Amino acid sequence: MNTKIAIIGAGPAGLMLSHLLAQKGIDSVILERRSQKDIEETVRAGVLEQGTIELMRSVGLEERMNQIGYKHEGINIQFNQERHRIDFPSLTNQEVMVYPQHEVIKDLLNARQKEGASIYFEVEEVELFDIESKTPSVEFTQYGERYSIHCDYIAGCDGFHGPSRKAIPSEQLKEYEHTYDHGWLGILAETAPASEELVYTHHPNGFALLSTRTPTLQRFYLQVDRTDHIDNWSDERIWEELRTRVDLGNGPELQEGRITSKNIVAMKSYVCETMHYGSLFLAGDAAHIVPPTGAKGMNLAMSDVQVLAQGLIEYYQDNREELLNSYEAIALRRVWKAQRFSAFMTKLLHPEQGASPYELRLQESELDYLVSSKAAQQSLAENYTGLPIEWEKGKKDTILS
Amino acid sequence: MNTKIAIIGAGPAGLMLSHLLAQKGIDSVILERRSQKDIEETVRAGVLEQGTIELMRSVGLEERMNQIGYKHEGINIQFNQERHRIDFPSLTNQEVMVYPQHEVIKDLLNARQKEGASIYFEVEEVELFDIESKTPSVEFTQYGERYSIHCDYIAGCDGFHGPSRKAIPSEQLKEYEHTYDHGWLGILAETAPASEELVYTHHPNGFALLSTRTPTLQRFYLQVDRTDHIDNWSDERIWEELRTRVDLGNGPELQEGRITSKNIVAMKSYVCETMHYGSLFLAGDAAHIVPPTGAKGMNLAMSDVQVLAQGLIEYYQDNREELLNSYEAIALRRVWKAQRFSAFMTKLLHPEQGASPYELRLQESELDYLVSSKAAQQSLAENYTGLPIEWEKGKKDTILS
Repeated sequence: MNTKIAIIGAGPAGLMLSHLLAQKGIDSVILERRSQKDIEETVRAGVLEQGTIELMRSVGLEERMNQIGYKHEGINIQFNQERHRIDFPSLTNQEVMVYPQHEVIKDLLNARQKEGASIYFEVEEVELFDIESKTPSVEFTQYGERYSIHCDYIAGCDGFHGPSRKAIPSEQLKEYEHTYDHGWLGILAETAPASEELVYTHHPNGFALLSTRTPTLQRFYLQVDRTDHIDNWSDERIWEELRTRVDLGNGPELQEGRITSKNIVAMKSYVCETMHYGSLFLAGDAAHIVPPTGAKGMNLAMSDVQVLAQGLIEYYQDNREELLNSYEAIALRRVWKAQRFSAFMTKLLHPEQGASPYELRLQESELDYLVSSKAAQQSLAENYTGLPIEWEKGKKDTILS
Repeated sequence: MNTKIAIIGAGPAGLMLSHLLAQKGIDSVILERRSQKDIEETVRAGVLEQGTIELMRSVGLEERMNQIGYKHEGINIQFNQERHRIDFPSLTNQEVMVYPQHEVIKDLLNARQKEGASIYFEVEEVELFDIESKTPSVEFTQYGERYSIHCDYIAGCDGFHGPSRKAIPSEQLKEYEHTYDHGWLGILAETAPASEELVYTHHPNGFALLSTRTPTLQRFYLQVDRTDHIDNWSDERIWEELRTRVDLGNGPELQEGRITSKNIVAMKSYVCETMHYGSLFLAGDAAHIVPPTGAKGMNLAMSDVQVLAQGLIEYYQDNREELLNSYEAIALRRVWKAQRFSAFMTKLLHPEQGASPYELRLQESELDYLVSSKAAQQSLAENYTGLPIEWEKGKKDTILS
């Protein structure tokens, strides 16, 4: 089959890219390793930046988000048994929306399928060919049958472990990575919200995060050693440790409930600066991973494809390739700033194993400074609610909105 | 002899404390290891924060500072061959003054000696006695003769290596420290200023700082390995390395001149949280050391003694000990924030030996974020020009001014 853009991966990046292109009449085909049911039903985290909220609105996908998403006008930073609120509107005039990734995917899939998009689920053995040429192709197997897509460009939106990045010759990859000593133990629990807004807690035992999902389902996290195993964590131990780290001692706050899922995720920072190679573009987790502390993963995927879509639109509509050729540079500027913020939030809130007493005090002084300085809070707020896309170096207007 | 406060050390901390007390009629005696000529003539760095400028003015010591000090309304941050100015007045409505420490000492000594203060220079074998009691004493030797001072309190303003901190039982000391891998090679050179304002440069080879002294004498610094030796650095090598790191390639900027002094200083962060023990108070370098990157050393000494003097004044004038007993807590809040800022500036600008490619990129993104964000610049500016003394936790009015 033929298409203009072969999109590998039906996550937020791939689906939004396809949707943005379709709005300008540019044809794409999407391949996805998993089933539709699987990607729609896997409960994922999700905090949408202001820019991502606006993107969803600008492409007509706001209805369910407005209904079931939760606007958050701030977050709480807790340390030394005190909770401090960072108020976004007064600091940046921006806000965020707690709206999980699988809901975003449902909205995008629904929109794309209504328009009769070509989306192949449960594909296997995806292979990229001739990505250095102007006539690349992608082959894949679905239900035992082998298919081939001939296209102008390939968009690798297939996550960290997908085949797209691996198709680039390794000597061409400029990669940067960092692995943290700690991981996050995450649970989903059937209970009432412990707080209206997210609570990021620094405690000598380790970081904890109270996040919210719905009025009856909550997501909580505990910093653990990255080599720890979930079998070491009984439900009782999890609740006790959450209470130790988070409860302020003035009344019961954290209500226990049935834990419906629990797992430990390692924390990693990764950037592949080779986001454009021949006819292949990488977007989202295929090109970069952030630790979850800054809530930046999905948002970076969305800003990547905003730039990539606009580049492709200018190419197909006006035969101008400048923006497309600037995709890597524009995306990386925002990626590295998000890496910076994610590392900042992670270092701010996670006591590190083996940290010296001096380093622990310095971390406390960072927290103390944050809650005493409007400038420091503004810096946190502008990053948390999302920095603008810098379409030109030093120029921050958005093109799409 | 008898006095109310025995002050050990005639640096900015000790002299300012004596001066502040004298203004309220409280008697003190100052002991100094070096000669008057020596402390007045040793050329030292000096960037006065807004609060230190105001303190000098409020105690009538502004005349020479206004004449020969240089108001600086900003600093330059240079990286990737671009120089970016951080403009203090528009960011914080504060400024700094380049006015070296030895000039501050001259002003204070002159004022104290005009009033007939007891200052003993070239003292040796200083010993503190009975600091746990209300009747402490200090013994010292001057020109072969042994003296004894009986006093109410002892102020240890005698620097990192002085005897005061060592008089506290080691099991009572709460100490925190960090040593950096790099040091600063500093030179004094007889040449014209290379820039009107300070230039803090991040370069792959290492940090460099262009500082100014007078129209004909400049102070420049290069990051070197802490184990490096000054004999490895010929004048030619120093100038070449300075040009490599700092020159922007658009015309000759750095003018060579005779190097009149050069040395390598290790960089260290240190805090002794035991700033009050019995009848002994520590202030300035006796209690804390910062790396020079944030220009905080002398300013912290000055804010320490502002709090200590006010505590002593309230004690002698109103018989109220609350503030005196809060000295340690109030001083440490500001000390740790200055430690935080000094560590931030140091990490921002010094490529670390052994840093991973990811960490180096993260450092670049920190610089890139700084020059693109007003909030980040405000944070830098408010710290560089000086955070307020927090006399009460969360309350930032000054009492003295």
